[in-house]
Amino acid sequence: MTPRLELLRESLQKLLRRGAHAHVQRLLRRARPADVAVVMRSLDERHHARVFDLLPDDEIRAEMLSELDGHLRVPLLVERPLPEVARLIGEMSSDDQADLLADLPNELRQQLIDALMPDEAEEVEDLLGYDEETAGGIMSPDFFALPETTTATEAIKALQAADEDDIEMAFYIYVVNEPGHLVGVVSLRALVINRADKPLSELMVSDVISVKVDTDQEDVAKLAARYNLLAVPVVDAGNHLVGIVTIDDVIDVIREEATEDILKMAGADETAFEGYSVIKNVRTRGPWLFATWMGGLLGSVLIGVFQPQLESQVALAAFIPIVLGMGGNVGTQTATIMVRGLATGKVSQDLGLRYLMRETGVGLMLGIGYGTMLAIYAVLAYADTGQTLSLALTVGLSILASMTVAATVGSSTPLLFERLNIDPAVATGPVVTTTVDVLGILVYFSVASWFLGGA
Amino acid sequence: MTPRLELLRESLQKLLRRGAHAHVQRLLRRARPADVAVVMRSLDERHHARVFDLLPDDEIRAEMLSELDGHLRVPLLVERPLPEVARLIGEMSSDDQADLLADLPNELRQQLIDALMPDEAEEVEDLLGYDEETAGGIMSPDFFALPETTTATEAIKALQAADEDDIEMAFYIYVVNEPGHLVGVVSLRALVINRADKPLSELMVSDVISVKVDTDQEDVAKLAARYNLLAVPVVDAGNHLVGIVTIDDVIDVIREEATEDILKMAGADETAFEGYSVIKNVRTRGPWLFATWMGGLLGSVLIGVFQPQLESQVALAAFIPIVLGMGGNVGTQTATIMVRGLATGKVSQDLGLRYLMRETGVGLMLGIGYGTMLAIYAVLAYADTGQTLSLALTVGLSILASMTVAATVGSSTPLLFERLNIDPAVATGPVVTTTVDVLGILVYFSVASWFLGGA
Repeated sequence: MTPRLELLRESLQKLLRRGAHAHVQRLLRRARPADVAVVMRSLDERHHARVFDLLPDDEIRAEMLSELDGHLRVPLLVERPLPEVARLIGEMSSDDQADLLADLPNELRQQLIDALMPDEAEEVEDLLGYDEETAGGIMSPDFFALPETTTATEAIKALQAADEDDIEMAFYIYVVNEPGHLVGVVSLRALVINRADKPLSELMVSDVISVKVDTDQEDVAKLAARYNLLAVPVVDAGNHLVGIVTIDDVIDVIREEATEDILKMAGADETAFEGYSVIKNVRTRGPWLFATWMGGLLGSVLIGVFQPQLESQVALAAFIPIVLGMGGNVGTQTATIMVRGLATGKVSQDLGLRYLMRETGVGLMLGIGYGTMLAIYAVLAYADTGQTLSLALTVGLSILASMTVAATVGSSTPLLFERLNIDPAVATGPVVTTTVDVLGILVYFSVASWFLGGA
Repeated sequence: MTPRLELLRESLQKLLRRGAHAHVQRLLRRARPADVAVVMRSLDERHHARVFDLLPDDEIRAEMLSELDGHLRVPLLVERPLPEVARLIGEMSSDDQADLLADLPNELRQQLIDALMPDEAEEVEDLLGYDEETAGGIMSPDFFALPETTTATEAIKALQAADEDDIEMAFYIYVVNEPGHLVGVVSLRALVINRADKPLSELMVSDVISVKVDTDQEDVAKLAARYNLLAVPVVDAGNHLVGIVTIDDVIDVIREEATEDILKMAGADETAFEGYSVIKNVRTRGPWLFATWMGGLLGSVLIGVFQPQLESQVALAAFIPIVLGMGGNVGTQTATIMVRGLATGKVSQDLGLRYLMRETGVGLMLGIGYGTMLAIYAVLAYADTGQTLSLALTVGLSILASMTVAATVGSSTPLLFERLNIDPAVATGPVVTTTVDVLGILVYFSVASWFLGGA
């Protein structure tokens, strides 16, 4: 939190506890709605409705709602009289309306849609029909499109005449032909700096980058980032312009997708930030750990098989954690690099082999280094066991082998999953740790049997 | 890679191998520079210079260079004659110039700065003086600022007169007073839709959000995201407007910082995507593993202490991996959630205790579930050992305790580090895994001594 937000949070908390509502109201009058939305996370839930009511007006309330976390805005609305909620929703842009409505219970959603103006209701229902994670799901239908024959002056007049709330961030004017197909784009800037009587067809760039309504939001964000676009036009199957994804939504997508990827790799998801319910978190995170549990069981069976070796040299048990830990952590490093590389495009299938070879090399070199160090330690720490050298060779070579294997598994697994159209971020974590653990145990005790013999 | 990029890559690779340069040239004429920059990653290094030379003109070459990964553009430039490189750099905007120059060897950089126009050289040297990860380091000095008394018409005239290359994405006109202080901002849209004779002072929003030159780039990105800004003005210590950070750079920052955080948690960094050098990767990633190694050694010493228990019940060794694995993975889950939550603002110190309690609850519940399952397994698998029940209780309770402890450690460590101004993403990984491993061993063998007794 920035000092500015921290101050707002502290002041609000203090004033709310004291019931100093006139002061709260004054404070909220000067605060930005987006800041209030952030601070709401830290405020006691019983104060949420109060803060909301004390906001200066419905427009600001609607703005704050648009920025508020999904799980916080639902309880704020469900208890309110329908006309009030409908009025608030009426203040929002269509895409924010659709986002909010999607969070609400079915019945309330339908009632609210019915309460909207017919044309607004239709827009929102269209938007609600798209998958939330596609271009259609994040687009705004409030773009600005004009025919090719419009002149620069006419376009400016049209902009001036348009209702401010009906256009989302108009930096681009889209140019459409007779059947409504997207044929070009003119920047607001080109409009301003060019001769007034030029038609849009002469000012426009006709090689427009656009996406389809069902394009994954991540791909929309990547396009916007790669080509530095302020808005990405969205077309339907018939190439009719139906909406735009604006840069502020692109930024949200990029942040969300990064968070999602990070959490997925640890078997969690965004619900981790939605309240403090233990049960809800256990439900999302428990299943992921099942892979670890199964891997652990398999490991214990394997160690059971090698019980004769263990009985003849109990010291072997002492090195199980370090052999598995070093392998596991190299595997995680490698897997993380590959998963993130694939997500950002820095790694791709055609570069896969080169990365795999590099990573295996890294695992091997690190294994030589740490294996040697551990072997030296074993010589010093177990100098009086009679099998010192065998033990040292066993642990040293095991670290080397397990780190090399882990790097290979860690780099090839994400590539393989991507090729099979399985999200590498989800599958890689448990598969790599489990595989690396099991292989580590196998390697360790196989090497041990070789050097130390068994019973 | 999108199908479009994939096609470009395949075609280029094929044509380059065949030496069909006329075809390559034709292909490059139709390709977007940003696409070529992405595809360069996959092309053989020996073809890079050729592709670069076959690009249509210097402007496109410069654009491609601006988008190209840092480690790929240096080799492309160092071998070229100085005047050619100077000409290419002359085509770039000041902030891209500074970014590129920062990548080059000192001597070459100075020669290139000397070859620039005096005013350009000064701008670039100013930019190079700022830390790369601050607002100053990513800002562009090519903003558009006018005095408060300018009318809308005059402002539009000024925009029309300005050299297109000298303004980065002008959607906002900044308004400055006599001493050059930033006093307001007018959107291009407000300019277009308002009366022509109004002065900027009447059109402007005076509550401008700005950052200082030394503001961390991550904070700049957060502001832009929170307030949906297309550009963030940057002021120096005396509140003079010195530059703007545009939304395309904000997007790059958000992506980079997310990647950095993900990699940091695994003890790696961006160099992981810079070429295929094993040595370079071993150097960045090796030290992080030292914590694991030290933790593993400590673990082996601890297990050594409990050798009597192990000798009396060798089956104990079989459950070491699962006890440590379950604890380690819960710890990583929790730590990941906390680190990402702190980075995105979803978790903050004032919410810390609530998260810590929730996470401990999650660890406890998961521990009860998986502990019970493991105890049942132990009863079945070790039915004939005489100490079946004690072993089952030992492993069950150990899983429960290690998962609970891991969740507590995993959630409190990032909070603690942030409070100590240590980057949670860097420190959390090794500290949590190592602590959880060592505590897991302690818990396991302590419980074992209690139930099974020792020698």
